[in-house]
Order: sequence, then structure tokens, then C-alpha cells
Amino acid sequence: MATAPPASMALAASTASKRDTICIFGTGDFGRALAQKLIQSGYPVVFGSRSTKPSSLVPRGAEVLSHVEAAQKAAIIIVAVQRQHYSFLSSLAEALQGKVLVDVSNNLKIDQYPESNAQYLAQLLPDAKVVKAFNTVSAWALQSGTLDASRQVFVCGDDAEAKRMVMELVRALGLTPLDQGSLLAARQIENYPLQLFPMWRFPILLSLSLTIFFFLYCLALDVIYPYVYRKQDLSFLIAVSIPNKVCPVLALVLLGLVYLPGVLAAILQLWRGTKYRRFPGWLDRWMLCRKQLGLVALAFASVHVLYTLVIPIRSYIRWRTSSQIVSQALSNRTQPLDTTNAWLSDSYLALGILGFFFFVLLGITSLPSVSNSVNWREFRFVQSKLGYLALVLCTAHTLVYGGKWFLVPSSYKWCLPPIYMLSLVVPCAVLVLKFVLVFPCLDKPLTQIRQGWERNPQRPEPSHLIINKSAV
Amino acid sequence: MATAPPASMALAASTASKRDTICIFGTGDFGRALAQKLIQSGYPVVFGSRSTKPSSLVPRGAEVLSHVEAAQKAAIIIVAVQRQHYSFLSSLAEALQGKVLVDVSNNLKIDQYPESNAQYLAQLLPDAKVVKAFNTVSAWALQSGTLDASRQVFVCGDDAEAKRMVMELVRALGLTPLDQGSLLAARQIENYPLQLFPMWRFPILLSLSLTIFFFLYCLALDVIYPYVYRKQDLSFLIAVSIPNKVCPVLALVLLGLVYLPGVLAAILQLWRGTKYRRFPGWLDRWMLCRKQLGLVALAFASVHVLYTLVIPIRSYIRWRTSSQIVSQALSNRTQPLDTTNAWLSDSYLALGILGFFFFVLLGITSLPSVSNSVNWREFRFVQSKLGYLALVLCTAHTLVYGGKWFLVPSSYKWCLPPIYMLSLVVPCAVLVLKFVLVFPCLDKPLTQIRQGWERNPQRPEPSHLIINKSAV
Amino acid sequence: MATAPPASMALAASTASKRDTICIFGTGDFGRALAQKLIQSGYPVVFGSRSTKPSSLVPRGAEVLSHVEAAQKAAIIIVAVQRQHYSFLSSLAEALQGKVLVDVSNNLKIDQYPESNAQYLAQLLPDAKVVKAFNTVSAWALQSGTLDASRQVFVCGDDAEAKRMVMELVRALGLTPLDQGSLLAARQIENYPLQLFPMWRFPILLSLSLTIFFFLYCLALDVIYPYVYRKQDLSFLIAVSIPNKVCPVLALVLLGLVYLPGVLAAILQLWRGTKYRRFPGWLDRWMLCRKQLGLVALAFASVHVLYTLVIPIRSYIRWRTSSQIVSQALSNRTQPLDTTNAWLSDSYLALGILGFFFFVLLGITSLPSVSNSVNWREFRFVQSKLGYLALVLCTAHTLVYGGKWFLVPSSYKWCLPPIYMLSLVVPCAVLVLKFVLVFPCLDKPLTQIRQGWERNPQRPEPSHLIINKSAV
Repeated sequence: MATAPPASMALAASTASKRDTICIFGTGDFGRALAQKLIQSGYPVVFGSRSTKPSSLVPRGAEVLSHVEAAQKAAIIIVAVQRQHYSFLSSLAEALQGKVLVDVSNNLKIDQYPESNAQYLAQLLPDAKVVKAFNTVSAWALQSGTLDASRQVFVCGDDAEAKRMVMELVRALGLTPLDQGSLLAARQIENYPLQLFPMWRFPILLSLSLTIFFFLYCLALDVIYPYVYRKQDLSFLIAVSIPNKVCPVLALVLLGLVYLPGVLAAILQLWRGTKYRRFPGWLDRWMLCRKQLGLVALAFASVHVLYTLVIPIRSYIRWRTSSQIVSQALSNRTQPLDTTNAWLSDSYLALGILGFFFFVLLGITSLPSVSNSVNWREFRFVQSKLGYLALVLCTAHTLVYGGKWFLVPSSYKWCLPPIYMLSLVVPCAVLVLKFVLVFPCLDKPLTQIRQGWERNPQRPEPSHLIINKSAV
Repeated sequence: MATAPPASMALAASTASKRDTICIFGTGDFGRALAQKLIQSGYPVVFGSRSTKPSSLVPRGAEVLSHVEAAQKAAIIIVAVQRQHYSFLSSLAEALQGKVLVDVSNNLKIDQYPESNAQYLAQLLPDAKVVKAFNTVSAWALQSGTLDASRQVFVCGDDAEAKRMVMELVRALGLTPLDQGSLLAARQIENYPLQLFPMWRFPILLSLSLTIFFFLYCLALDVIYPYVYRKQDLSFLIAVSIPNKVCPVLALVLLGLVYLPGVLAAILQLWRGTKYRRFPGWLDRWMLCRKQLGLVALAFASVHVLYTLVIPIRSYIRWRTSSQIVSQALSNRTQPLDTTNAWLSDSYLALGILGFFFFVLLGITSLPSVSNSVNWREFRFVQSKLGYLALVLCTAHTLVYGGKWFLVPSSYKWCLPPIYMLSLVVPCAVLVLKFVLVFPCLDKPLTQIRQGWERNPQRPEPSHLIINKSAV
Repeated sequence: MATAPPASMALAASTASKRDTICIFGTGDFGRALAQKLIQSGYPVVFGSRSTKPSSLVPRGAEVLSHVEAAQKAAIIIVAVQRQHYSFLSSLAEALQGKVLVDVSNNLKIDQYPESNAQYLAQLLPDAKVVKAFNTVSAWALQSGTLDASRQVFVCGDDAEAKRMVMELVRALGLTPLDQGSLLAARQIENYPLQLFPMWRFPILLSLSLTIFFFLYCLALDVIYPYVYRKQDLSFLIAVSIPNKVCPVLALVLLGLVYLPGVLAAILQLWRGTKYRRFPGWLDRWMLCRKQLGLVALAFASVHVLYTLVIPIRSYIRWRTSSQIVSQALSNRTQPLDTTNAWLSDSYLALGILGFFFFVLLGITSLPSVSNSVNWREFRFVQSKLGYLALVLCTAHTLVYGGKWFLVPSSYKWCLPPIYMLSLVVPCAVLVLKFVLVFPCLDKPLTQIRQGWERNPQRPEPSHLIINKSAV
């Protein structure tokens, strides 16, 4: 009765009831933290060390042996040693033959050495199978269990089976392995933890320089101009009023810049009559940082909202309101309601609120966990349709805000237009171009081009093309 | 010294040091993008093509052969060809025998063909093992590496081993395979990328129709009524005032509708005396879209908050305030502070703020990455306890806002109640029913029913039931 | 032509074209829900039951057999039976020999039994391989497919191969297995679904008690003091004004408490001259709940923002404003603009807005999906640099808000300082200590210590240390 049928017998491998021993070279922070985590996950751990006398720092349950003895006990050896000490490993070449060596090291600078640490290790020990892994995980995160920062472990190596074994190990520790290909990728993997928001650099630099420009522009018109002509000290406007002019301008310009490359790409494709030629490098890079541009724009929009909502609390505004009312009362005037003004004021507020709402919706959808749970069509619907809706609403908000002041000469101090007029250039250009591209005479060929049609085809096998979701 | 012990020897399979060749049929966008990604991940790639002259578009490192030659080189063949060209594959039946064919195709419309593309392929080549995969991934996302939209790859197929091989391939590309069962699931998988928020359709349609109804209701009472009876033009209220009445009403009604089905389900279970009978279809569907209903309600609540906070900036409000003060000053009156009014005004604001705070907390918890990091008990605590707290606070906010106006006849223009009274019907009904259900005489049998107890048991084996976390 | 090359032949295992049968003991809620999910994923399912007459509740496609017959059909047996019924399983010991038994049970209380259910099962059946799994998944979530709460399935067991088989099964159902080590971990896994935010308990208790203290403090100074000395009834301040004093104070104090342990740890490390001695327990626990403390602080800050923004809408404020203006008008005074006041008011608003902005940024970065997509250096940059920026801005916001009132004796009612002065103690202490630690004479040795240097080294192998990203 106890004999299981043969099919399931094959599955229940009776031999491997224990996990395989893992060897760690080096009893430093990271080696010890990893050892502790491995022991928790049921792996026997043996340390390879120069001095084999047991240290109080080595986690309980781990054995400390000489390097050679430790290496013999395991198929996977984690080299938790600094690169400058790798040279001693060549003396162990015989013991390490055929073993899987896991390079976990990091550098202090990007591209510090001519070759990656893992490649250097592979050169030292050509008979071992070197796999790069674990370098993105910190000793502290392993020990405290608070893997707030990435659970992702990038893995690369030239030996597929060695890589598979290491990825299995990574998974057993509750981490997520990501196969990055051959050992050539080690360079990139070693640089990764040293990077500081590389995709954000351009959007942040751009917005910083625009901020400085627009800030100085406003300073000239709003503080220096009245000081020069009317000897008024309005320097306190620097704290709230001027930022509250710069922020919405930047939000609108950056939002326009998010959608401009898509329009330019469409024009380029129409011009070339094919989608099979690469875009120029600047356009490619621009398109890849659209998400970051959009989020920076959202940040400026959010700050603008807060700055706007505190207006009635500001001491200056309260003073202005009360002195207006007092002067009205003293002059015994009662103004009737100006319905046009009420309409304009309410409209631009409503447009701004709705624009901001859709903008925030876009921001939420770009959270990794949200964008992972929608399909491609839904993602494009939100990012394209709702994005253009937000752009239209925010542009209209600015236009209605400007209202009748566009034509009043006194708006143009020193012959310079007010800042909100400048902010309208990019979004209006985008909207006009997009509007033109929507016409069937342009939209139809564009759709065909994006489905693989070419005006001057030069490729051998157009019939086998698969229509896929086009980008942009 | 170099011989590893036998246990670890078994692990370090020395043969498979290289990845297996993958064959791709079709040199279209998707085929080429996939090839490039595969080559990056260390797979040799061979294209099967009608014309074998090397194309400049084929990624470097990929070989182009005839279909038969290419098929012989690999165990996995990715069919990146449009469905209408599948027929030519039957001529390759012999070469494809026993191979794993990966169908990556998509359609242009939901349920475009009587059977799914993958099933059609399986009918054409009964001796091949067809697996559906990769159709949710776009060529552009593969190429640019910006897999913002889903990393999930749905996989289905009738052959378990073939499916395992494809899932391994998916994982090697850094994507997440999700096993969807047999090839029958291909239909659903092919429809998936064409769906546009199916779970959101009902909540959005419902809220749209309610919005229109309440908007017209407000329009009649706030704009048409004063125009008819007092010839006042208050049309500018359409921009901010009326939306700011409609939004909170919808937020409250929809929040009530989130908790109503749970209460109805409890009553139904009490009535039936068992939890082992299915709920009616409408109740099931309603319960499944509660999250979406709640998020739409949160959107309306957020817009209401913004509309409310801009009130003091509105030109109309500033005019009204100043004319009131001016008339006070002119008539030489000074009003004393009405403490009751101050209490009422501050209370409804405080209740609204706290209700909105818990509402936002609910929204944050429903983000996929947050809800994934809490356990079931914590999730239910937030969604049920904090949810009811938000409902109670928001209902109280509306009740206190109404305040003494409930009993003043002049509130009822054209004998119609103000809109906020209408909004109280659903949430008050939910709260009353919930309050009744909390009484021990009803709560005790309900808890028993949810733990598996039945009033009229008809099932053979009640003793083996496992008490599990009940839903609702 | 049809013969595939040997390399790929090895891959395409032709035998295992069907999945292996899974046996489930117990036809309760969870057993049935799991069966349905398994059948959908292509597994044949057989129920082991006392009564073998087919029940209408058992999902279609599942067979119902006696326990012994069912057990023989499968290698994996899921024991969906309550712990108190486990004893009957010992009679099946022979049939279960060598089988993988999956314990899915949960308890009603934390640490309800001396040993975990899984360990109890393993004691009853020493010849079976017991694996704990699936206990965090609810029957309802399995059935409805709405796995909103965790997709994570904690797995533990003493037999590595059995565990591997169960993890494969978990993955096939679209869930994420997390290996937790040996069966000893079952106790923790069984307690997990019963936990209610254990990491949040301390931050929430702390903030609750501080809230009560500061609320009573404000009540005494703002409501009781004027009532006692001036017979004024200001009780309505309880609704908005006092909460709006307590919230910012708590936000600032808690934000200070987030950064205090890091500073204390640095001082301790400098004092000890090594990082290799454990911090005292209270400091360890404090450092582990910094994220939760910060998020609670953010919650208070957000409520403070809302309370502040509704100020101009409050009936009391509108009354105060209009009576001030009326009295101005009646006394025929017109106040000139006080530029200093305008500067102070605008500055503290601007500082508060920027501080809140960076605070929200910190909150967004602590969302699991966002923190998973940044590397360790980026995560530390945001949490440390931007965090201190937020702390500096919020402290400056409070200092400027206090402004000249620090030196005015009338601010000190009953000789007690206003509440915002109290709130400055912790953040100012943190900032002063941090400022001192930034000086090279302290920063240099601290950096060395964190890289592994020791003033009095006692460890055998310092040369092999790997420099890793230090925490704090």
C-alpha cells in the first residue's frame, strides 16, 4: 500500500534531502551577513579563511576552515573579498577548478579598473566558472531584513549552468535574480550601484536652468521694475509670488516637452516614409526621458497648487484685501458683481483643477506597481489620451488666466511679455502640430508606416511582418 | 585535491555550458526586437526566412537560414508571423515535428477569429507543441528596455515540458512568466492586450450617469430657479460651485455603494443560513468592482477638496465678502461672534478633513505594491475598519454641513431637497444596516455561517472544514 | 529531416506531457478553492475524503476517493484539514510514507499551540515530508482571482526536494513562493497572517500618546486660560485650531525622531571606535521602525496642510476678518503695508510648502515598488540627503513662524512656552549633532570606522574585509 506509483516516484527525489554547502571566502561584513541569511534558509555554510581559529563574529552554525578545505566542501564559492586581495586566489587555482565562483564585489568609482572585477577574477582563474551576483544587495539590508531598496539581484556569467545555480540560490534567499547575460555585463552591473539617477540628470538640469532663467525674468519685471520706476520695495514677492509664477510656467513647458518628441518623431516618420530608420540620437534620448520630464513637471505643478492655495493666508494679501475694502467703505461705493470676471476667474480655476487632476492620475499610473498591472493598450491610453487631455486643460487654464491681458499694453513692462505668455509657446506648438497630424490625410499614411508599410521598401520580406503595437 | 565531493558534482552539470539556440520565424519588428534581446541574454539566434540573403535589419550575431534549416537548429521556434501567413507553416510540418512553437501573435479586434491564433497553429501542426507567450510585450518596449508597461508574460499550452521551457526563456529575458493553463486560455490571452480597463467600465459608466443627473439637478435649482423667479444670471456657478456640489455627492454615494454589497451579502447569508450557495450574479460582479468604485469615489473626493480650497480665491467669493463687509461698515453694524456657527463650521471642516485623510489612506493601501506587502488580516483591517471609519466621517461631514438647514422650508426649492440630502440616502442606509448587523443576535450566527456552519446542512463532511479567513 | 539535433532533444522531454496529480485531504472551503485553481492550471486533482460519494460542492473535474486511494495517486498531498483532526492521519501513515504533505492550516491566535501545526504534523507522520505553504492565501482570494492582498506564499520544510516541488506548484498557480528555511520557520509563518502591523505598533502608540499630551497642553493654554482669565468661550477651537497646532508639532517631532537614532548610532560608533559591536536593543528597534515613524510624521504633516488651507473658509476666521475691517473702516484708519510682516509670513509659508514637498517625495520613495526600482545609493540619497533637507526646511518653517514671538513675554501663558517651541527641541538637537558630525575631525574617523577600521582591533582577519555600503 505504501508504494507510490512510478510517475510520482520520479518526482520525489529521496537523496537530496539537504541543501548543498555554500563556501564563503572572507569573513568581512558582507560575507558574514550573507552567511547568516544562508544559514537561515537552510544552507550549511563554511568560511574559507587564512586563520582558522573560530571568530566570535562568524555566525553560529558556520564552520571556519582553510581556503582549500572550505573550497572542497562546496560547489558554489562566494568570493566576499576586495578586488585588491584577489591575487591570493591564484594559489588556490587547483582547488577552485570547475567550481562556481560568485563575485560580489563593488568598486568605489564608476569604471575604476580597465576590466570589471568579475572579469579580472575569471582571468585569474580560467578553470573556474565566475558568476557576478549580489553586488546590489547591502550587508545591512541582509542582516536587518529590511530589504527596502531593491530585492533585485543582477546575475551574469558565461556558464549557463553556473548561472542557473546562483540564480536558484538568490531565489532561495527570497531575492529576485535578473539574468543579465554574459560576464561582459559585469562592468555594467558593477557600475549600477554607483549610479545616481542617470535618467533624471537631463530633466533635472533642464528644469533647474529654466527655473533660474524664469526666476530672474520675473525678478526683473516684478521687483526691479517697480523699484526703478516707482521706488516700491516689493522684495517680499521673492518668497511666494515669484515662485508661484515660475512653477506653473515650468510645469507647462516641461509637460509640453514631454509630448513634443512624439510629434517630432511622427513628422520624421512621415517625411522619411518608413519607420525602419533610427531616429537621431538626441530624439531617442529625449523620448527615453519623457517619463522623468513628466514627473518633474508634476512636481512643479504640485508646488504651484500649494503656493496658490495659501494665497488667502498670506499677510500681504490679507492687507491688500482689507485696504481695498476699507477704501471702498470710506468712499461709500458698492461694486456690482462683474459676471464676466466671475466666469473668467471660475473657469481658469476649474480648468486648472481638472488639468492637475489628470496630471496626478498620469503620475500615479507611472508608479512601477501600477504600470505593471495594466496592459500595453491601457498604458498607452492613459499616457497618451489622458496626457493630451491634461496638456489641453493646463494650456487652456493658462490662456483663460491671461484672458484679456494679452492685448493690454501695460502688461508689457520693458516691452517684455509676462511670463505666462512665454510658457504657452511650447504647449501651443505641440497642440497645433498634433491637431494637424490628426487629419486623415496625414494620420492614414502615418498609421500605415507604423504598421510596417514603407514608401521606398528596401527589405526582402515585408509580407512576414507582424503588426505590433507601435510606440510613440 | 581538485576533485569536488560527489554531492556537489551532481549539481555542477558540466555539459550545458552554452544556452540553446532559439529559432525565430519572421524578420518583422517583433521578431527582430526579440532576437536582439535574446542575443543580449546569451542565446544564439537563427532566423527562418523565405529569402536567406542577410538583411541589414537583422540584429548582429543572428544567422538567417531557410525555414527548414533554421528549425533544425533549435528546440524552440518563435513564430513571429501574422496569422494570415500561418498556412505556409503546414509545408514545414515534418521539420517542426516535436518542436516547441511559440505563438506570439495578436489580433486587431477582440474575438476576431472563431478560434485563437495559437489553437489555429496547433491545428495546422498537430505534431508540434504550441505554447502561447510574449503577446503582451511590445517590440518597442523590448528594444528600448523601458518595460514600463507590464513585465508579465502570460504563458499557456497543452504540453507541460514545452511550457516549462518557454517560461525559463521568459525568465532569462528578465520578464515574469505567468502560467495560464492549457491552450484553451490562449483566447483570453490574445484578448488581454486589446482590453481597455474592463473592470473600470461599470464604475465609470455609473459615475458618469450619476454625474449628469446630479449636474442637471443642481443646474435646475441653482441657476434656472433664480433666473426664473428673480431674473438673476448665476450661470457662472457652472464652473466651480455646481461641480463642487456634484463631486462630494458622488464621492459619498459611490463610497456607500462600495460597502452596500458587503452588507447585502451578509443579509443574504443570514437569510439562507449558509455560505455555500452562490450569490446572484449581479452581487458577485458588484463585489468584484468595489475597489474600482472606491477609487472613483476617491477621485471625486479629491476634486471636491481642490474645488473647496480655491473658494477664497474665486472672484465671486471675494466680491461677495467685500460687499458684505462694506454694507456692514456703511450700516455701522458689528456682528458678535456666533459660537454655534463657529462650532458647526469648524466641525464639518474637521470631519471632512479626517474623512478625506482616511479615504486617501485606503487609496494608498490599494496600490498593488502596498497591498502585496501586507497580510490578509492587515488588508481587511484597512479596507473594512478604516473604510467604515472614512464612511462614518464623510457622512457626518455632510450631516453637519447640512446642519439646521434640513428643517428650513426655504431649502426646498420647487419642493426638491438640496442635493446633499440625496447623497445621504445610500451611506445612511449602509451604516444603519451595518449597525444592526453588529448586534450579537445577528453577528454571532453570521460569524458561525462564515466559519462553515449551516442551518440545514446537506453536505457529507462538515467535520473536515478548515476555518479560513472569510471574505466580505 | 524531422530529427532534432541531440542537444535540443535532451531539452524536450517527451514523457511528462501532463502535470502530476495533486491530492487534497478535506473538502472544506480552502480545499475546494485550491482544487479549482489547480484544475484551471492543468493539474488533475483528487480529493481524499471519508465519504466518497460525489458532493455537488467539489469542483468539476476533481475525483473523490478514500484517503488511502487518493494518497496513492499523487506525490503531493495538501492537508486542508483543521489541526484538531490531524490525529486521524496517523492511521494513514503507511499510505503517506515518503509523500510530500503540505500543511496549509492557520490558527485563531498567535502561538496557540506549543508547536506549530506543521511540526505537529511532522511528528505524527515522521516518514512523510512536511512542507508548510499556502496559509497566507485566502480561499476567497483564490476563488475570485482578486489576489489584492499578498501573492506571496511563504514556504518552509526540512526536505529540500519536497520544498522545491511545492514552490514549483505555487509558481504554477501564479503566486510567488518565498523560501523561509527549515520547518522551524513554520511557527513564524503560522503567526504571520494573525499579525496586525507589528512594525507600526510603536510609532502609532508613541504618536497617540504625544497627541494626547500636546492636545491637553493646547487645551489648557488656548481654551481654559482665556475662560479662566477672560470668561471667553473659545471651545470651538477644539475642532480645527488646536488640531492644527498639534499636527505640525507631532510631524516635526516625529521627523526629528526619525533622524535621531542615526545620529546616536554615529556617536556610539565614534565612542566605541568600531562598528563591530551590536547597538543596544532599543536603538536597534528604533532604527528598524524609522520608516514607519517617518510615514506617521507625513500623515500628521498632510493633515496639518489641509487644516491650514481651510483656514480662510472657517466661519470664525471670516467673522474675525470682517470685524477687523469694519472696525478699521469705522475708525477711518488705513494701515500701511508692513513689509517685514509680509516677508515673515511669505517666508514661513514658502519654507513649509517646500518642506512638505520634499517630505511627500520621501513618502513616495518609500512605496515598495518605487524603492525596489532604485539602487542602494539612490535610496540612501533620497532617504538621507532629501530627508535632512525636509527636516531643515520644516524646522526653519517653525522657527520663522515663531518669529519675534519667542521674546515676547505675553506668549508665555502660565509661564508655559507655546507648543511650537516645544516641537523645536528634538529637530534642533538632531540638526546640531548632525552639524557637529559633519566636521572633518569627526567625519573622517567615522567614515573609516564604517569601512571596517577599528581603534582596538581584536579580530583575526581584517585584511579580507569587503568595503560595503554602510548603513545609517
